[in-house]
Amino acid sequence: MPHHLMPMLSQIDLQHGTIKDAAEVIVRRLSDMQGHYQDQNAVRDLLQEDPILYRVYLTTPPDHEYQWRTAMSVIEPGKVGAEYYMTKGHFHKDQQAPEVYLTLLGKGQIVMQTHDGQTETQPMLPGAVNYIPGGWAHRTINTGDSPLAFFAVWPADAGHDYAGVADRGFPLLVLEENGQPVVVPNPHYEGS
Amino acid sequence: MPHHLMPMLSQIDLQHGTIKDAAEVIVRRLSDMQGHYQDQNAVRDLLQEDPILYRVYLTTPPDHEYQWRTAMSVIEPGKVGAEYYMTKGHFHKDQQAPEVYLTLLGKGQIVMQTHDGQTETQPMLPGAVNYIPGGWAHRTINTGDSPLAFFAVWPADAGHDYAGVADRGFPLLVLEENGQPVVVPNPHYEGS
Repeated sequence: MPHHLMPMLSQIDLQHGTIKDAAEVIVRRLSDMQGHYQDQNAVRDLLQEDPILYRVYLTTPPDHEYQWRTAMSVIEPGKVGAEYYMTKGHFHKDQQAPEVYLTLLGKGQIVMQTHDGQTETQPMLPGAVNYIPGGWAHRTINTGDSPLAFFAVWPADAGHDYAGVADRGFPLLVLEENGQPVVVPNPHYEGS
Repeated sequence: MPHHLMPMLSQIDLQHGTIKDAAEVIVRRLSDMQGHYQDQNAVRDLLQEDPILYRVYLTTPPDHEYQWRTAMSVIEPGKVGAEYYMTKGHFHKDQQAPEVYLTLLGKGQIVMQTHDGQTETQPMLPGAVNYIPGGWAHRTINTGDSPLAFFAVWPADAGHDYAGVADRGFPLLVLEENGQPVVVPNPHYEGS
């Protein structure tokens, strides 16, 4: 009889976007990503309290590399200077590996870039399905005043390349201007 | 410059589980799956009105076979004899290809089987994430009195094998007994 992976079941708390039985919770504080923000004076001030910017609730990994991972990410509302709380952002090492987001709570933006500098932004609102094809780095940004919570699916063997983003930044920033989110070019982006 | 697939965006109506800008909507009526139900007298009676059992709202397919598909499925509440409205159910032709469901509305069950007769059931409730590994046929059943709506992600090249289910049936049935859903062995299941 062939070996079959067993089906799995997880439960998202739809009021908070969390997963109570998460296999792992990744917690990112400002100190984990201070270099990602433009306003280093604001970073220094905020580091005293070192706020949690987001949490990722990972479900149990299937015991096979060709399967998929699922998670809920919850980005807190807040800003570092004029920039909103956001995720680090990453490329997949496997340039074919896609990722799908389904937003459940809150309001935000996803910013995507390719290695050769193409960019794309999409809104994130409850019910929005963002399809991120292989080859696009992706960062999510909470532009609202409540948590931004979204479900994600990606291949377990996709691999994460954070350095490609940390070294060069994203070509686009999402800032608050006059109380509204605006997308602007990143003056410090290290183009290829 | 390499060719990159472009990111895509779809919008689910979270009140109804539908996708207004769906690329395609599959509509399954009782006449499309009368052989799947046990009570053929009930089938004959209901065929006069030939009710819609479920709809699948497919988002735009990415133009690359290694990418993924996403959809919302909405199963209406109702019964054919003692059996609830349900999907046809299928194996993936690619036995490695997984599928992920996230239930958004309603109440139901997912019934899964392998080719060698292993079975598994899981509840579907808002926030439930059902992870279906490769090799498991899957059928979803609305056991509630309102639409059961769930988001699905699967590989675009997974392929669908409906015949494997249509010929042999599922080893388990979900019936209403005394107003409650119960899972029972299928007396007509053609075991291997």
